[in-house]
Amino acid sequence: MTDDIRLCRTFQTAPAAVSTDDAGPDDAAKYLRSALTAEGFRAPDWLVPDLEDGTAPGSKRAGVENVVELVPSHDVDGEVWPRVEWSHLDETVRDAGRDQIDALVAGAGDDIDGFVVPKVGRRPDVERAVDVVSEVEAAHGYEPRTFDLTVVVETSRARSDLRPIARFGADSRLAAIAFGPLDYAADLGSRDLGDRPRWDGTLEALSNEASAAGLLSIGGPFDDLFTERAGVTYYNGDAYVDRLEHEAAIGIDGSWSLHPNQTVQANTVHMPSPDALERDVDRIERYNRAKRGGTGAVVIDGRMVDEASLKGFHNTIRRVRAIDRIHPAQTDAYYDDDLLKRALDLDLTR
Amino acid sequence: MTDDIRLCRTFQTAPAAVSTDDAGPDDAAKYLRSALTAEGFRAPDWLVPDLEDGTAPGSKRAGVENVVELVPSHDVDGEVWPRVEWSHLDETVRDAGRDQIDALVAGAGDDIDGFVVPKVGRRPDVERAVDVVSEVEAAHGYEPRTFDLTVVVETSRARSDLRPIARFGADSRLAAIAFGPLDYAADLGSRDLGDRPRWDGTLEALSNEASAAGLLSIGGPFDDLFTERAGVTYYNGDAYVDRLEHEAAIGIDGSWSLHPNQTVQANTVHMPSPDALERDVDRIERYNRAKRGGTGAVVIDGRMVDEASLKGFHNTIRRVRAIDRIHPAQTDAYYDDDLLKRALDLDLTR
Amino acid sequence: MTDDIRLCRTFQTAPAAVSTDDAGPDDAAKYLRSALTAEGFRAPDWLVPDLEDGTAPGSKRAGVENVVELVPSHDVDGEVWPRVEWSHLDETVRDAGRDQIDALVAGAGDDIDGFVVPKVGRRPDVERAVDVVSEVEAAHGYEPRTFDLTVVVETSRARSDLRPIARFGADSRLAAIAFGPLDYAADLGSRDLGDRPRWDGTLEALSNEASAAGLLSIGGPFDDLFTERAGVTYYNGDAYVDRLEHEAAIGIDGSWSLHPNQTVQANTVHMPSPDALERDVDRIERYNRAKRGGTGAVVIDGRMVDEASLKGFHNTIRRVRAIDRIHPAQTDAYYDDDLLKRALDLDLTR
Repeated sequence: MTDDIRLCRTFQTAPAAVSTDDAGPDDAAKYLRSALTAEGFRAPDWLVPDLEDGTAPGSKRAGVENVVELVPSHDVDGEVWPRVEWSHLDETVRDAGRDQIDALVAGAGDDIDGFVVPKVGRRPDVERAVDVVSEVEAAHGYEPRTFDLTVVVETSRARSDLRPIARFGADSRLAAIAFGPLDYAADLGSRDLGDRPRWDGTLEALSNEASAAGLLSIGGPFDDLFTERAGVTYYNGDAYVDRLEHEAAIGIDGSWSLHPNQTVQANTVHMPSPDALERDVDRIERYNRAKRGGTGAVVIDGRMVDEASLKGFHNTIRRVRAIDRIHPAQTDAYYDDDLLKRALDLDLTR
Repeated sequence: MTDDIRLCRTFQTAPAAVSTDDAGPDDAAKYLRSALTAEGFRAPDWLVPDLEDGTAPGSKRAGVENVVELVPSHDVDGEVWPRVEWSHLDETVRDAGRDQIDALVAGAGDDIDGFVVPKVGRRPDVERAVDVVSEVEAAHGYEPRTFDLTVVVETSRARSDLRPIARFGADSRLAAIAFGPLDYAADLGSRDLGDRPRWDGTLEALSNEASAAGLLSIGGPFDDLFTERAGVTYYNGDAYVDRLEHEAAIGIDGSWSLHPNQTVQANTVHMPSPDALERDVDRIERYNRAKRGGTGAVVIDGRMVDEASLKGFHNTIRRVRAIDRIHPAQTDAYYDDDLLKRALDLDLTR
Repeated sequence: MTDDIRLCRTFQTAPAAVSTDDAGPDDAAKYLRSALTAEGFRAPDWLVPDLEDGTAPGSKRAGVENVVELVPSHDVDGEVWPRVEWSHLDETVRDAGRDQIDALVAGAGDDIDGFVVPKVGRRPDVERAVDVVSEVEAAHGYEPRTFDLTVVVETSRARSDLRPIARFGADSRLAAIAFGPLDYAADLGSRDLGDRPRWDGTLEALSNEASAAGLLSIGGPFDDLFTERAGVTYYNGDAYVDRLEHEAAIGIDGSWSLHPNQTVQANTVHMPSPDALERDVDRIERYNRAKRGGTGAVVIDGRMVDEASLKGFHNTIRRVRAIDRIHPAQTDAYYDDDLLKRALDLDLTR
């Protein structure tokens, strides 16, 4: 049980259906299929088939059908979290979202971990979304809390209610809170004059309230996928990693990915580095030896090891074990065999 | 009705009376008169005759008389919002403010849109200010909610209660919240060691809570009006525009102006650029054509147009129409005739 | 009474007992003794004998004994605030903290001003800490509110409840709120990838909520004590002063010190500069003269002096008088004799 860490280094959205204007009907599920078959570091922790902004209004039904057809027939390593339509302002949109949740639970419920609900408003709107999932879940005979919920904070009202929403989430099926900077900026009437704000205050608050309530926090999408310099256009990997490192530094648990390259980078940045793993394996080994030797206080690297630091060391190991359990190809490729074996063999009792 | 957007790109304070030490008695209203007769881009959306910090203690009565004499006899394009005295800590000051509101309503009520109340404290103090306006309004036979209210957040208590104040404001005569960084810094005991902080967290929160409650948000004054370099002193336009662009990027609706030059720049930065107007006019024209053509989903610039984006395009047009209605000299000077005509002729039904 | 300003420019922690692995038993109190005998600018406003992270688990009892033995026998200029163990998550740790408070009150209560309680959670946990102090205080026959309380905000729950904690503090024995960025970052699951965040949003909120509730705010420790360049390792004074100036600019009242050098710098940065003192002495002298002359409004440096600015000038003087009363060696060394005499002689009635 103590090894159960919920991983969401990557929250990759993929359109559930591409408009048939852009692709032949046979290819309408191309991005979804590609994400479902991604391997190694390209496999996200959470795959989010997108029925909201990523799928055109005329293709919503096709999108639901694609998810129902493809998700159960593919064996993905991570979790599957469809994003449905929602709006705190528009009952018609909420009804569409409810119908999508209903169709997805009916057709693919055994392979779905939760639902991502965008454009929520204040806390009562989040409670309303939870109620919708509860009703659909019961109607289809699933156990209570089979399906978790992630909300996207991207309205001024949700931001205003971030603390009450998170506190409500601590005792509900709410598992994560993601940030949606583009819709958020539009909702605030912000004007795009070049440099987009980083919304530091909101990201700090998101990280804090999620932690305080035992929820995961997920950063917003980065859609400057490509950059151009001196005549060549290429993947904008530097800017995305800068964003990822900032998010990791303030305790955001996972990052939004829009592209397999972004998934590789987010998986990597949110994974303990080999040096960090080596250091914490070593510390725990020394701690365990000292403890067996009977000394009361244990000094490691010149500092007393208290419960909080020990928990920190253990968390490194637990994260690596969770990645190894879910995506063994990633730990195999990233860590030296001996180091990984030491991490898997450690005694984490205290 | 849908064209009714309340404009406050500029919130220009002008001393209601200059100390008679600084000017002959005949000139005591010089700044107020200058602001009341400003034309073109120098005309602010909101003119704020200042009876608080801008008018000396011995000149308050003269300031009220200046407003009563000059405001009704000038035909200003925008709104008129006197700033009166107030203090959450000092009943004597609040009584002075109430007397000023009373004299202004009595003498110039038909030409006043609302009152700016500075140095409010927690939410109950804002409710108290609303009650004062209600009582004066009724005493002079005006309809309820004839006069709106703007509060200046410039105490730690108002900042602490920003969310409850804004939530109260959603159902009251509160129309806008402005920021007062100088008094705020003093209230926090901050020490001026050169670079003043930008108070990013507070500005983000101001923009968010105002939006969530349907209020306008207004940035703080920038009093480094002039800069000196290599022996020449000149208007500090660059630094002020940097501030304006930051405010616009995080969704602050309007900016504080202390000078006609600042009014020109704030009017301009908070106005859709010709390129932005051209782009959104074009998008709506294509959207309307496609909709008449019967297609369900409309794709513009490779993206599906949803309700939120459509609302964003419409808002650009509504802003320009509001500016054109209130300050036609500004739209005439800023936009090409054909483009402006297309904007005014567009069908904004959905 | 009006001269009573509570000073906490410096909050210097010193281990109550060094591990006997690191020092001979005779030297286990070396840091505490050094801090208790510091003179001049090395004397902190608040000395914090540290029984929490600074003292090893096996040395806690020795730490309490050191405080009981050394504090009453040294005549320190500032206040003494032991930091005890606490954890909002762990009753055993809280019990240890209570025992430490009990032993310290019993053995050195007459020489202790308050207790620093780390790792508090939400508001009810802070209330619990207050109750512990109340019970111990009463058990040993001290008057109610003899001992004040400072909490360290270093968990996501305390940060989430910062506003309710501060509001509770306005009417309780809570005197100050300090920030603990290292434990805070760990609690948020933040990952150390080089540059540590400055937590601007949290520091702004700390300064604001403390001010709004009449509490002192204290920045977090800066543990990059030394830096290395081109082969030489030396005291990292530049980076610490940058931190101090940022804290002072946003209204943080005092800074955390881990070293006598840091104490010198924090005492200095949070002290009015000679220029600032000269300026405000001069302003008050001119104001007092003008007021005796009977003029209603007083203009100083081209601005009307209102109550708020006058309060600001007076605060400069009050701070200097408080420093002079507690640490006369500091004001003697820092200010010109004539200037200091003028500051001490000023009439601060209004």
